[in-house]
Amino acid sequence: MQSAITELEEKCQAAKAASKKLTFLSTEIKNKALLGIADALMSRQSEILAANNLDYKESEASGMSTAMLDRLMLSSSRLEAIAQDVRTVASLPDPVGEIIEQRTLPNGLQLSKKRVPLGVIGTIYESRPNVTVDISALCLKSGNAVVLRGGKEALRSNLALSKVVQTAVYKAGVPQGAVQFIESTDRALVDHMLKMRAAIDLMIPRGGAGLIKLVAENAAMLVVAGGIGVCHTYVDQSADVNKAVAIAHNAKVQRPTVCNALDTLLVHAGIAERYLPLIAQEWAKAGVEMHCDKNALAILKPIPSLKLVPAKAEDWGKEFLALIAAIKVVASLNEAIEHIERYGSGHSEAIVTQDKSAAMRFLNEVDAACVYANASTRFTDGGQFGLGAEIGISTQKFQARGPMALRELTSYKWIIIGDGQVRP
Amino acid sequence: MQSAITELEEKCQAAKAASKKLTFLSTEIKNKALLGIADALMSRQSEILAANNLDYKESEASGMSTAMLDRLMLSSSRLEAIAQDVRTVASLPDPVGEIIEQRTLPNGLQLSKKRVPLGVIGTIYESRPNVTVDISALCLKSGNAVVLRGGKEALRSNLALSKVVQTAVYKAGVPQGAVQFIESTDRALVDHMLKMRAAIDLMIPRGGAGLIKLVAENAAMLVVAGGIGVCHTYVDQSADVNKAVAIAHNAKVQRPTVCNALDTLLVHAGIAERYLPLIAQEWAKAGVEMHCDKNALAILKPIPSLKLVPAKAEDWGKEFLALIAAIKVVASLNEAIEHIERYGSGHSEAIVTQDKSAAMRFLNEVDAACVYANASTRFTDGGQFGLGAEIGISTQKFQARGPMALRELTSYKWIIIGDGQVRP
Repeated sequence: MQSAITELEEKCQAAKAASKKLTFLSTEIKNKALLGIADALMSRQSEILAANNLDYKESEASGMSTAMLDRLMLSSSRLEAIAQDVRTVASLPDPVGEIIEQRTLPNGLQLSKKRVPLGVIGTIYESRPNVTVDISALCLKSGNAVVLRGGKEALRSNLALSKVVQTAVYKAGVPQGAVQFIESTDRALVDHMLKMRAAIDLMIPRGGAGLIKLVAENAAMLVVAGGIGVCHTYVDQSADVNKAVAIAHNAKVQRPTVCNALDTLLVHAGIAERYLPLIAQEWAKAGVEMHCDKNALAILKPIPSLKLVPAKAEDWGKEFLALIAAIKVVASLNEAIEHIERYGSGHSEAIVTQDKSAAMRFLNEVDAACVYANASTRFTDGGQFGLGAEIGISTQKFQARGPMALRELTSYKWIIIGDGQVRP
Repeated sequence: MQSAITELEEKCQAAKAASKKLTFLSTEIKNKALLGIADALMSRQSEILAANNLDYKESEASGMSTAMLDRLMLSSSRLEAIAQDVRTVASLPDPVGEIIEQRTLPNGLQLSKKRVPLGVIGTIYESRPNVTVDISALCLKSGNAVVLRGGKEALRSNLALSKVVQTAVYKAGVPQGAVQFIESTDRALVDHMLKMRAAIDLMIPRGGAGLIKLVAENAAMLVVAGGIGVCHTYVDQSADVNKAVAIAHNAKVQRPTVCNALDTLLVHAGIAERYLPLIAQEWAKAGVEMHCDKNALAILKPIPSLKLVPAKAEDWGKEFLALIAAIKVVASLNEAIEHIERYGSGHSEAIVTQDKSAAMRFLNEVDAACVYANASTRFTDGGQFGLGAEIGISTQKFQARGPMALRELTSYKWIIIGDGQVRP
């Protein structure tokens, strides 16, 4: 353990030293490094996949769930997709050095607010080895050094990927030390890492609710936590029923294991008898298990072959990450907003309505990173929003809210140029 | 103590409830409330000054330092200045509801990023009763509720001021509960308050280094800390000597007790023999005690009637808040930058030089909230920067850096308006 802590501290110090140089790294070198990563992911595919295969077999033998195994698995097409994301990051504007504001004060001082990197980003993540590449690419482009600490189950994959990344970026002229991968998977190391406030400027946890909570509660540095999405879709009395079916179905079924998928469907009592049978039949075809409140149950029970379960108290506010949805009939828009306020996680919330004032009330009053009218919550994504990439989705209000990409990994400094001005 | 905790929790809950309504409060009502505060500060002057006088006498009798007594004291002209600041806040644009970004995605989704309040701002502060009014005004204008916890020494003043504020704002139509003042001055209450992550969204400590450190290290919520300024002015070899004298003199002498005042003067060896005697004679006239390194001492010793003290190791990186300056001769711009990196607090740092490339290197490489070329660090101030007001000066990189005013007390939400779009 002591040697692992020494390794961690040395790597963080090296990252800190590199971060000072990264601030001044040209966009050209950063982009060259990113394209180098993308190329290397392709040319060194076989060794990456071989390492991943060992991780996969070991995890499979140890009884890992199919969902987790799926997250762990890399393939040629997945590597191509990861490489493509890195190329996208290369194509995005460099946020560093951007002048956010600029003006000349009455006394002649030239004031500007210039975007600068944060410094060193730490990340603690589980299973998905693509995080190793994604976060490295976003940190590099935003001028930050990165300290990666992946999960035990993906160690060989992460080692292979981080070596590919390191080799490619240093070859392109990125300062040595900019990308650090912590090899020890000792759990106690996480506790130590979370206390390293002087070395790590921002911590980004990526993984399940347990990991997010551990990091949020114990980190001494700022944490941008996200990824927990208890998402509601509210079908208003005045909804277009067809749109409401398409939207709720998409939000639940298109990719049920992710944070922006639907968890609870709220339906106005005035439309429930017309709407619920339609969405329930679609969901039944897709194999969705429906946890219904009393009123929803009364409406849906007569329909044969639906997977209906009476909802329990713990279904409200639960992130299912599976083909399960909670369903509740509400008496009003107010009740829907109150339910979301009580049970939502501040991630993505939607209303389906043709009533513009109901839409406006929902969009204004629901306190979440992303609020939707007449669209699927599945759009909450840096790529979909046109940010080009994403390091995570923040459900907090500081520094960044919603999809986080390059700008969200930066700070700014005030630059004041004078000609001898003093304060009167 | 239990009753004090109950009071605190109830007040924080009331603030949380009010904050939800504050988000939608019109600019008109907010401005009316602010002008109401300004008027009431004038019309209720006698009761405020009477309360302040009791605080002052008690603190004087208990042996409070002159500097602290000066911070505590209110006068008719100081109240007028506070009222004027509140009127300035009323005149500033309302940050809430501002559309920061807006675009239509290729699939027709209308995406916008809208500025929203943070929620509840907590503040723990010492002595200066003006903080009660300043922070209330900034929080109100930015749509945030505020929970104020002032120091024991200013309790009567703060109570009088908070009542004036509360009466004025509720009369103007601000939701009840928006401004909370905690009356108990039990120190243990601070510890409790710092753990109330669910009730208080952001904590702003205002006071001495001890308070800032206590809050930064113990708060469970985000803290925007600042106010600690170890500020350097570096006089480069190519400096205009007259400007360098004026700038360093202003930075040290114009108001020595504040965070943006000069602490350490760094002087290039190539200009030290010409420059140091000039600034030292100015400083001597103003009563500045000079803590000199060996080289500075060698240059200044022959000059009669200077208050020279050999610098000790602890003088570097010390915030003097008094008519004391540390002086060091450096061999190069590099040495100056390294010294600042080691000892600076990331607040305000200045170079005086006629060499544009030296200025650019300094401005780029020094990692501080505010970096200056050829101007006094005393300009680091929300009012001076044209932000109209200031809730503090952040020396951290998240959420806000440098002078913090209205925008820095906000977050944003993503609003997505569709017409039935689902994710393919």
